[in-house]
Amino acid sequence: MISSFVRDQWYVAAYADEIGTDLFARTVCGEPLVFFRAEDGTAVALADRCVHRRFPLSQSRRDGDTIVCGYHGFTYDTSGSCVFVPGQKRIPRTARVASYPLVEQDSFVWVWIGSRDLADPDLIPRAPWLADPAYTTVRGMEPLAARYGLLVDNLLDLSHETYLHGGYIGTPEVAETPITTEVDDEKGVIYVSRRMADAACPPFYAESTGIKGRITRWQDIEYRPPCLYLLHSRIAPAGVLPNDDGTDPGAFHVEVVYAITPETENSTHDFWAVARDFALEDAKVSGFLHDSNRAVVLQDVAALNVLEKVIAAEAGGYQELSINIDTGGLAARRILARMAASPVKEPA
Amino acid sequence: MISSFVRDQWYVAAYADEIGTDLFARTVCGEPLVFFRAEDGTAVALADRCVHRRFPLSQSRRDGDTIVCGYHGFTYDTSGSCVFVPGQKRIPRTARVASYPLVEQDSFVWVWIGSRDLADPDLIPRAPWLADPAYTTVRGMEPLAARYGLLVDNLLDLSHETYLHGGYIGTPEVAETPITTEVDDEKGVIYVSRRMADAACPPFYAESTGIKGRITRWQDIEYRPPCLYLLHSRIAPAGVLPNDDGTDPGAFHVEVVYAITPETENSTHDFWAVARDFALEDAKVSGFLHDSNRAVVLQDVAALNVLEKVIAAEAGGYQELSINIDTGGLAARRILARMAASPVKEPA
Amino acid sequence: MISSFVRDQWYVAAYADEIGTDLFARTVCGEPLVFFRAEDGTAVALADRCVHRRFPLSQSRRDGDTIVCGYHGFTYDTSGSCVFVPGQKRIPRTARVASYPLVEQDSFVWVWIGSRDLADPDLIPRAPWLADPAYTTVRGMEPLAARYGLLVDNLLDLSHETYLHGGYIGTPEVAETPITTEVDDEKGVIYVSRRMADAACPPFYAESTGIKGRITRWQDIEYRPPCLYLLHSRIAPAGVLPNDDGTDPGAFHVEVVYAITPETENSTHDFWAVARDFALEDAKVSGFLHDSNRAVVLQDVAALNVLEKVIAAEAGGYQELSINIDTGGLAARRILARMAASPVKEPA
Repeated sequence: MISSFVRDQWYVAAYADEIGTDLFARTVCGEPLVFFRAEDGTAVALADRCVHRRFPLSQSRRDGDTIVCGYHGFTYDTSGSCVFVPGQKRIPRTARVASYPLVEQDSFVWVWIGSRDLADPDLIPRAPWLADPAYTTVRGMEPLAARYGLLVDNLLDLSHETYLHGGYIGTPEVAETPITTEVDDEKGVIYVSRRMADAACPPFYAESTGIKGRITRWQDIEYRPPCLYLLHSRIAPAGVLPNDDGTDPGAFHVEVVYAITPETENSTHDFWAVARDFALEDAKVSGFLHDSNRAVVLQDVAALNVLEKVIAAEAGGYQELSINIDTGGLAARRILARMAASPVKEPA
Repeated sequence: MISSFVRDQWYVAAYADEIGTDLFARTVCGEPLVFFRAEDGTAVALADRCVHRRFPLSQSRRDGDTIVCGYHGFTYDTSGSCVFVPGQKRIPRTARVASYPLVEQDSFVWVWIGSRDLADPDLIPRAPWLADPAYTTVRGMEPLAARYGLLVDNLLDLSHETYLHGGYIGTPEVAETPITTEVDDEKGVIYVSRRMADAACPPFYAESTGIKGRITRWQDIEYRPPCLYLLHSRIAPAGVLPNDDGTDPGAFHVEVVYAITPETENSTHDFWAVARDFALEDAKVSGFLHDSNRAVVLQDVAALNVLEKVIAAEAGGYQELSINIDTGGLAARRILARMAASPVKEPA
Repeated sequence: MISSFVRDQWYVAAYADEIGTDLFARTVCGEPLVFFRAEDGTAVALADRCVHRRFPLSQSRRDGDTIVCGYHGFTYDTSGSCVFVPGQKRIPRTARVASYPLVEQDSFVWVWIGSRDLADPDLIPRAPWLADPAYTTVRGMEPLAARYGLLVDNLLDLSHETYLHGGYIGTPEVAETPITTEVDDEKGVIYVSRRMADAACPPFYAESTGIKGRITRWQDIEYRPPCLYLLHSRIAPAGVLPNDDGTDPGAFHVEVVYAITPETENSTHDFWAVARDFALEDAKVSGFLHDSNRAVVLQDVAALNVLEKVIAAEAGGYQELSINIDTGGLAARRILARMAASPVKEPA
């Protein structure tokens, strides 16, 4: 099997507050990593396999800013260099494990998977709402037992909201309204837009915004392959539009962010966050949006886990039938395949 | 692995009353199917994979006589034609899933696996006792985690009754009495007959018939590959034989029917039914025969599940030693191999 | 995958008292075996697969000194010869299962895996303490879900005691003290010696010997590939050495014995025994040593089970970094690879 992973890329490894004093294991793009914060607070990621006999360092213990392997005591500093081996004074020159570039930004810890010298922090896509005091965010991460491409497909075609998420965010208009898709091949960004002028207000928004009647509902997707998916969601009473100057005081804005991080070829870390610009201090709205969005994500997880089994069982290949709603998803597949085949060369 | 399935054949998919209003999933010969009854009562079987992204239709919902895919809402009528897709008016010409010919007969729902235009209902073998008011039937279906060939082997050699089913249907005479085997190669039917003139009466028959002493016991097997296995069982007090005109008032007749339906290469639907021409209204006899026969089937299931693991572990091949009792089973293997290699061409 | 098993060798199949009247199944080097004691007390091992349809004989029943297959009644005597088949008088000439040479020695039942005519009992390595009244032994067997080579690695490098078994047998000196390794290539024996002149006394020995202060601690390993591992352990108050004539009244001696018996390519029977020459009748010491050593073995089992998964996942190969402490383990790998490639030819 040829790897479907796109290398030389930044991926969300964790939320910043998942990484602390304890050793923390997570696999990204098939690479097992161990994370911890050094005593000065810096987040560190090392390859999670001792260079001696492959024992997972995450099942070891810290001694100050070093990790002492739980099997034979090989000891590594935060750069991955070995500083102690048992039974001899001389430390072999090659005794080191890989360390991984990390950047903390927008509440995420991003890890660079690929050639270390290509790791340019300026390439990390932004999701500024998640760390912006003008927004309140609820969030989570659900393990998905399916290849990441199925989640990309899922998120780029929201017509499934009507069928899979009927009680939460789906209404008939989502499936019925045509979409416009734009692909910026140079920057590698995909935009899918669905603007409903006069739609039913799904429970997800009725409860949180207090709008009673029908709504104008915009779903503007912006996917920055491979990892970051943004859904700019605008809800307003039917007919209320932004001002000509771009201000938009009559609407509610929700920024839905997914970080799609492959774990193995057949499993994915499904990070999700919902940031809103209204009811900022309202704990009840936060609780409702958290629980509702998590329920929606778990409906997707359940469906995609089924689909992974279906596809894995059809080893000999299978056919699909694509229609207009799939335009964004097909563009994403094309871009991801191109990126997997030829990774980014030089940072600017 | 080359498929061992015999195609262009009728298989028992279900008992008629298993299929109702709700969507019902069952895989036959590796083909995932979804069943339901249309509003007019007709049983319907469609391929259980949406043409769009392969989502199982069985995990969807009905809307009248259509199935609405639970993922993106592709909607199919009872012929498998797609009648709605989301986000556009035009329905692609190729948007359809396969529908499968079904026939309800002898309490079973038979499904045709193979080329649709070869599906001739006259080819379905009969088990008329199961729907005949002159008989009372108990029955069940047990999932078997073993290839169907192991069940064929098992049923064509009843000498195992003595060892595996000692407390129920086995007595020493079953293992000791020689068998006669006849193979009708043209019709593809195998007959194995074991006639015990003077045998102990096993608990299974002593309890249900009330016979106290020794018995004349006939076991006449008729196997119509691939799916239908009949055991015509005749029990009478020792020495009591049928009249010259074929009438047989002094005996008890039990028709044991198995439908052997491959699910995957390594699992099988093991349908079993026991029809009797005595004590027709006696609920206690029905309960006893149901529980006893189910216990016997579960003993076979346990043994064959073990055997499947043994065989699967011996990937490099293994040897067997066949003796006289295996004549019927070996003939069945030969006929099944021939049928798998060259399926039936044209119906008469 | 090429087998890593070394054939034409004796392996520990069981403790003598594990084998009794009941049929007992255990797989050795991938060969499924059934064991029992004949009525005269002799231990018997046969291939655990009926020659007819491969049913496991261990799931059958005994009839005197024969095994009656639980499926169709093929019956075998203690030599593996078939003495009954169902439905006919003639027993086919080839109806027999393999029988395996067994020797009971040093509390173990040893089985010969390989060509029967090469089975020379004089080749069995000895662990006489286990059946010597001058010693008291505690022992056990833990199933290991890892290839046997990982256990060989583990036992030949005891520096891991400091890290994996800190609370029981590890102290800093074990990891710090250099080892001497000697390989007798002709006899195929590996000796690894670590002699600590002045070391902390780990709880394992402090509790059982009553020594209060620091100790002289010798760990002299003797590994006789593939199966038998001996650790001659000497503990004495610091500075106390054996007399010039070899007597050693001031020391405590513990003989730690492991029998490393491959079950499958990825699982192992991990037999362990601890024989001591002190506190012979002291049940509290026996209980303490049993529980402590079992805890140590289970720490190894847990670590090696993790390592097996790590290695199995790295199908494409992986790198290790070996240092001085690995000298014995690397020698063992080399000898085992040689033995696996060309088994012993003729017994002397």
